[in-house]
Amino acid sequence: MIQIAKGTSRDIRVANRFELLRYIIAGATVSRQRAAQETGLSVATVSNLVGELLESRLLKEVGFEDSRGGRPRGLVSVDPSGGILIGVDVAETYVRVELFDAHLSGLAAVEELLRPEENRPDQVVGHVVSGVRAGLARVGVPQDRVLGVGVSVPGQVDRDGGVSVFAPNWDWHDVPLRGLLAEQLSLPLYLDNPLRAAVVAELWFGAGRGRDNVAVLNLGTGTGAGLAFAGSLYRGATNSAGEWGHTTLVMDGRPCRCGSRGCVETYVGAPGIMQHLRDLDPSSPMLRAGDQTATIDALACGFEAGDPVAVKVIAETARYLAVAIANVINLVNPEVVVLSSWVATRLGEPLLAEVRPILGQYALSRPLAATEIAVSSLGGDPVVLGAATFALEGFLAAIGRP
Amino acid sequence: MIQIAKGTSRDIRVANRFELLRYIIAGATVSRQRAAQETGLSVATVSNLVGELLESRLLKEVGFEDSRGGRPRGLVSVDPSGGILIGVDVAETYVRVELFDAHLSGLAAVEELLRPEENRPDQVVGHVVSGVRAGLARVGVPQDRVLGVGVSVPGQVDRDGGVSVFAPNWDWHDVPLRGLLAEQLSLPLYLDNPLRAAVVAELWFGAGRGRDNVAVLNLGTGTGAGLAFAGSLYRGATNSAGEWGHTTLVMDGRPCRCGSRGCVETYVGAPGIMQHLRDLDPSSPMLRAGDQTATIDALACGFEAGDPVAVKVIAETARYLAVAIANVINLVNPEVVVLSSWVATRLGEPLLAEVRPILGQYALSRPLAATEIAVSSLGGDPVVLGAATFALEGFLAAIGRP
Repeated sequence: MIQIAKGTSRDIRVANRFELLRYIIAGATVSRQRAAQETGLSVATVSNLVGELLESRLLKEVGFEDSRGGRPRGLVSVDPSGGILIGVDVAETYVRVELFDAHLSGLAAVEELLRPEENRPDQVVGHVVSGVRAGLARVGVPQDRVLGVGVSVPGQVDRDGGVSVFAPNWDWHDVPLRGLLAEQLSLPLYLDNPLRAAVVAELWFGAGRGRDNVAVLNLGTGTGAGLAFAGSLYRGATNSAGEWGHTTLVMDGRPCRCGSRGCVETYVGAPGIMQHLRDLDPSSPMLRAGDQTATIDALACGFEAGDPVAVKVIAETARYLAVAIANVINLVNPEVVVLSSWVATRLGEPLLAEVRPILGQYALSRPLAATEIAVSSLGGDPVVLGAATFALEGFLAAIGRP
Repeated sequence: MIQIAKGTSRDIRVANRFELLRYIIAGATVSRQRAAQETGLSVATVSNLVGELLESRLLKEVGFEDSRGGRPRGLVSVDPSGGILIGVDVAETYVRVELFDAHLSGLAAVEELLRPEENRPDQVVGHVVSGVRAGLARVGVPQDRVLGVGVSVPGQVDRDGGVSVFAPNWDWHDVPLRGLLAEQLSLPLYLDNPLRAAVVAELWFGAGRGRDNVAVLNLGTGTGAGLAFAGSLYRGATNSAGEWGHTTLVMDGRPCRCGSRGCVETYVGAPGIMQHLRDLDPSSPMLRAGDQTATIDALACGFEAGDPVAVKVIAETARYLAVAIANVINLVNPEVVVLSSWVATRLGEPLLAEVRPILGQYALSRPLAATEIAVSSLGGDPVVLGAATFALEGFLAAIGRP
């Protein structure tokens, strides 16, 4: 989060640059006057910022609009050829690399699978590097057209270097990932985790656009929240904010991989949902031992078909999810709560249908009434998109810096 | 929170004014150069802001410092006679009014008790007005020297008018408190609740000074959190953020006055602590039926004297408090967690002594290591001080406004 308490005019200029480009990137072509009206910035500020963005080639002039007899108004739009942005999603079982144009339209995607034993930092770095090189070769652009590479890794990320990863089979503590990547990729690098990538994707392209206070709840194997306040990503004191998955939902409850018990994750993450299924029917054919994705898919189909066990599993998961969402609403009072990640893609709508009617039992009425709750409408992999957006934000923040 | 995403240079100017005055108010006399060093603002910005604050009479020139042969540097300090700030703490059983000079030193305090049946808005407003008038008479200053009146009321506060109060015996819903007060007090009014007053007091005068991310946990009859991010009070979408007391700690647990069950408040608020005592020893002499303050006092004395039941009550309360604090650390990743309000004053240190060794079972190690946890060191009533500080902030925000 930009430090406004000790703010400088530079901080606010960067924030305004984000705001303006978020607006322009959402539309097609726009005049400076219209952009000023829509963003609340002054026309002078918009003209100034548009000038910078034209110079850095992220925007281009695209003609004039009819201004009803007045002076014709110049129109601008994002210049897709302004540069390449690369997003990388490092997960436990794969490394996904996607190349985007400056409009954040996907150009090419490369996925490399990680075998369970491929969990050493040098092995993972190897896959990131080969994925990026393969993507660049496929698109046929030289490396100097790349504005930056955003890399998401699960766990606790120190943006300046060290990374500790949470995945059960990885025992990474303070791995100097930035340095390892920089040895092989001489491109601007932006490191962070999937929680923060997902919320940045929503701020730029999803339900978070134009909102000040946003909570993106990632439901996957792990669970966690990406938070944005005042329209900007909130990081907390050590870039650790948002560990919603490791807040306690049931004191002395299910054991969690973090070492604690009763964490939200153990009831609403994929393994937690599998446990609900196992508790209800240990011999259910929907239960695919060791395969979370297949089990969640089977549950989604079962629910669709009205299978009573699937319906019960969804209801049981929703009971916990409602409390965990209410806790975020009561503490953080967001404008919008977005459910993201692969479990939300498959089960988000049925879960929300169960969650909505019981949320009022736990959330206070005033903040609840102000909260929109939705499943993410971003297609594709929001983490890859968010990681690429980190690279765009980094490029924007560096404009005009010596 | 100031909206930096759609920020203006005016927003940042106000934030810098807060930052500078917070620094000056903490010290005695200071040069512009020193203030610039300590706040990170440029000397030009500080000179500019100091000029404004001299003109509005919050600062005064107080001579020169030796600058080792260079040009003598002018010193400034807060001018206590710059104006009167009034803080009002409306609680269920009393209305406390305190008058402060511009340095936020107390000049006079008036407390009016509310009888249980005095819970109509007009009755409460009557006590606020008579308290303010009595205070002004005692200090002997005319009303036009008052910069503003900050009023804290428990519950959900819409700053522009309506107030809904949470106290068990009060059934206030959308009471137009601002209008009712304005009819009788023609002074700038700033309405908010005790959670937000307490965190603003810590930001200006306590453990929150100079910190970006702060959580003040109020332990009283009710419990809740005041949150600050980027050095500024965080309000959320509807000024409802911080309802930590109504996040769920035990699913299907103790019934809460908010209508839900298992809320944090029912385990660590004064009535919750009394319940722990009742559960452990229903005939304990420390249990003073219907008198929370006397019971908490008796527990504090009992603990001091090594009474085993008191020791067990503290341990039991701490077990819940540790989980509830860990949830804030994991979700919000603050730099500092401050325990405030009257239960914390009496039991905060023994509770923290029990909480610290078990916190690591629930909080993730990286955010936990970065969090300082302390009982508030502010004497007096931090809510009254914070309410008066709202008036100071309001005055500062209005400087230069037409």
